[in-house]
Amino acid sequence: MLKNTTISAICTGRGGAIAVLRVSGNDTLYILDKIFRPLRKGFSIVDAEPNRIYNGFIIGDNGNEVDRVVVSVYRAPHSYTGENVAEISCHASTYIQSEILRLLVKNGAELAKPGEFTRRAFQNHKMDLSQAEAVADLIASKSKAEHDIAVIQMRGGITLEIKRLRDLLLKFTSLMELELDFSEEDVEFADRTQLKDILTETKSYLNRLVGSFKLGNAIKNGIPVAICGEPNAGKSTLLNALLNDERAIVSDIPGTTRDVLEDYLNINGVTYRLIDTAGIRQTNDTIEKLGIDRAKAAISKAEIVLIVLNPADDIHRQFADIIPDGFPCEKVIAVVNKSDVYPDADVTSLPDGVGVVKISAKHKTNLDELFTKISNLGVADFNEDEVILTNERHYTIFSEALAAIERAETALISGLSGEFVSQDIRDALRAFADITGDEITTDEVLGNIFKNFCIGK
Amino acid sequence: MLKNTTISAICTGRGGAIAVLRVSGNDTLYILDKIFRPLRKGFSIVDAEPNRIYNGFIIGDNGNEVDRVVVSVYRAPHSYTGENVAEISCHASTYIQSEILRLLVKNGAELAKPGEFTRRAFQNHKMDLSQAEAVADLIASKSKAEHDIAVIQMRGGITLEIKRLRDLLLKFTSLMELELDFSEEDVEFADRTQLKDILTETKSYLNRLVGSFKLGNAIKNGIPVAICGEPNAGKSTLLNALLNDERAIVSDIPGTTRDVLEDYLNINGVTYRLIDTAGIRQTNDTIEKLGIDRAKAAISKAEIVLIVLNPADDIHRQFADIIPDGFPCEKVIAVVNKSDVYPDADVTSLPDGVGVVKISAKHKTNLDELFTKISNLGVADFNEDEVILTNERHYTIFSEALAAIERAETALISGLSGEFVSQDIRDALRAFADITGDEITTDEVLGNIFKNFCIGK
Repeated sequence: MLKNTTISAICTGRGGAIAVLRVSGNDTLYILDKIFRPLRKGFSIVDAEPNRIYNGFIIGDNGNEVDRVVVSVYRAPHSYTGENVAEISCHASTYIQSEILRLLVKNGAELAKPGEFTRRAFQNHKMDLSQAEAVADLIASKSKAEHDIAVIQMRGGITLEIKRLRDLLLKFTSLMELELDFSEEDVEFADRTQLKDILTETKSYLNRLVGSFKLGNAIKNGIPVAICGEPNAGKSTLLNALLNDERAIVSDIPGTTRDVLEDYLNINGVTYRLIDTAGIRQTNDTIEKLGIDRAKAAISKAEIVLIVLNPADDIHRQFADIIPDGFPCEKVIAVVNKSDVYPDADVTSLPDGVGVVKISAKHKTNLDELFTKISNLGVADFNEDEVILTNERHYTIFSEALAAIERAETALISGLSGEFVSQDIRDALRAFADITGDEITTDEVLGNIFKNFCIGK
Repeated sequence: MLKNTTISAICTGRGGAIAVLRVSGNDTLYILDKIFRPLRKGFSIVDAEPNRIYNGFIIGDNGNEVDRVVVSVYRAPHSYTGENVAEISCHASTYIQSEILRLLVKNGAELAKPGEFTRRAFQNHKMDLSQAEAVADLIASKSKAEHDIAVIQMRGGITLEIKRLRDLLLKFTSLMELELDFSEEDVEFADRTQLKDILTETKSYLNRLVGSFKLGNAIKNGIPVAICGEPNAGKSTLLNALLNDERAIVSDIPGTTRDVLEDYLNINGVTYRLIDTAGIRQTNDTIEKLGIDRAKAAISKAEIVLIVLNPADDIHRQFADIIPDGFPCEKVIAVVNKSDVYPDADVTSLPDGVGVVKISAKHKTNLDELFTKISNLGVADFNEDEVILTNERHYTIFSEALAAIERAETALISGLSGEFVSQDIRDALRAFADITGDEITTDEVLGNIFKNFCIGK
């Protein structure tokens, strides 16, 4: 299953001052030897000590110096992939990067496919499959919450949980199978109550895990927050106040991506995706049909709805015009604006359960309370140490396992033959193995998992 | 002049799988010690050996593991900056990068300004100023030609030339000054002919250097090539044929930036910037005024003009309609298209000096000859080992030096007092010192040079 090829890729992003190319495989140092001239005379990189840095030049086809570089050497199995690995740090020009890659390929390396380094790490048992998948999530993390979830998974969080469930179910099946072996004799070895308890525990755990996907997905993509309200309510001013508040913006340390996150808020390390319902316009006695539809669509997609209310006008009417009937009030925060002018605005007409904050968007007063309310709604049940599913593949597999356990429970309760129960449990166990990759052997499944990685990882 | 601060920055570009942060300064390892927990128990990074790689975790404010990283340690003076340096390789998420940078700053590092690492390398005498400047050019290189020019400069190409000129001029001035010391006695120590020879040699060299800036600038920004011709001549087909020809495109190895170079050609390692004169339209008997103006502007900016001619129509008229009177013919390549249908098109009516290539854009025949003709025009006098100026600052200073030498020559010939000659030579010598940074002491000048670097270098 393991290939003997040596692979290479540019591992760093576009731009920057320095770039790193990674080479992994048996021939790493032999290939490098053909294009790397160490500063130390008479030394060959083939004799490199592990975990050492070597200075020298990459030499081109005509003996010209392509770049002065630094090469870091790792020896199998003590490397990321478990193979011999070299990392070449060079100046980050596109010319130098592509020229070094071309020279590596010319001398025997293959271009790495997306995720191929991590795939090799998995195949060389440096990590299990769910940990390998977490690497991609870790690299893509934009917020602390996303990051924390990926770190738990990378450290084997899911693997540990699965191991516990697996042990429970294996105990279950061994009891069942024993009973089946003696089925001719119509004896029950397994204590039905104990079996049911095991299934209940497994089911409850799987329910929590499958249920966590919604939050995990929201954290990964940003928790959707719809901002609605009539134009004169101060929606734009609030939006600007939120986006420019130093408590809410993504770090402005140079090099981070503040500019592409213009419509994202970061509160306490969780990303919120702001959905602007611009277009809701109210005339004197009628709201344009289009505006209502658009607002309703945005609101229905949102986990949190901020409705900006103008206390100069009828608050109750504004609320009723915009928030659809039957929409869960606990997801709505009524942001009563212009508190500088109307500090005593009457909010008693708002439905029960709706959060209320009085602010002045213009003077940025009381934004803290608004941030706290958003944060409480967004991650009320988010425990930093808990495993949260963010991966569609895991969600699907755990859902299948849950269905299998539920089938087993029904079979057990309705007194079906142990064979059926046993079959369902084996389905659940097979699902778990798919998560950790314990029994995955087909190239196709692995190909699907790693194709979404970036090249160089 | 040297600061004792420790600086830090993200050195790699956006995206990618791994990122590198660099820390440089006296406190590098002490700052790192506060946030880095090595895998090896009981070991502190403060005791790191130089040129070694250390595995471990970056630890956050609450003792949480921010990321598993690899730290490379360099000890002063054997580092890029000449100071203690550590490079932290981490996973490339924006969260991880900004969090590590935040932790470094929190523990005493300062954010590096653009080019500050290279500035320190200059100030610690790891390189002279022209070499330091070449680092920025090297990183920005998109083509082999740009790269080669930067490499020559980085290896001290300009410095060596200046040293030679400086030695000549110093010899000159010492002879002159000796004479001035005895000026009361009206004796000429210096041989006027020898002095003139020195000035002529210096002038000739400076002339070449100052003259190289035009080419250097063109290579840096891409040699401008205007493509003109009537719409039915096949201009678009030619443009597509050129841009998609594998001989001409920038490497398509993954990770290189082919997509942003859509209007650039790369022939033999030199970049050509294609200026499309779309908009030249001819009616039966008159060319629209606007079209002519636009084409003429494009043609006047170009180093090379490709005029695509349709042999089904009057070639001479097409040429005369588009190429302005008096435009240098040696810059024009007449691309006679549709050679598959009109292999024997008569081109004798074209002006002398114009390059002529018969091609079929549609069938991509004879493009090789066109590439050769473009390449010969573009870099006819480009010698890979010669110093070529690409830097505006160097161009200005060398131009000043040239003017000073010319003044000295005039003064010498017209028999002016040696004092005047001597003053001019000192002006030239001061200019040379400005190039290598030998006597630069003001922060302002250095600030101007390094502000155009990227952060992290």
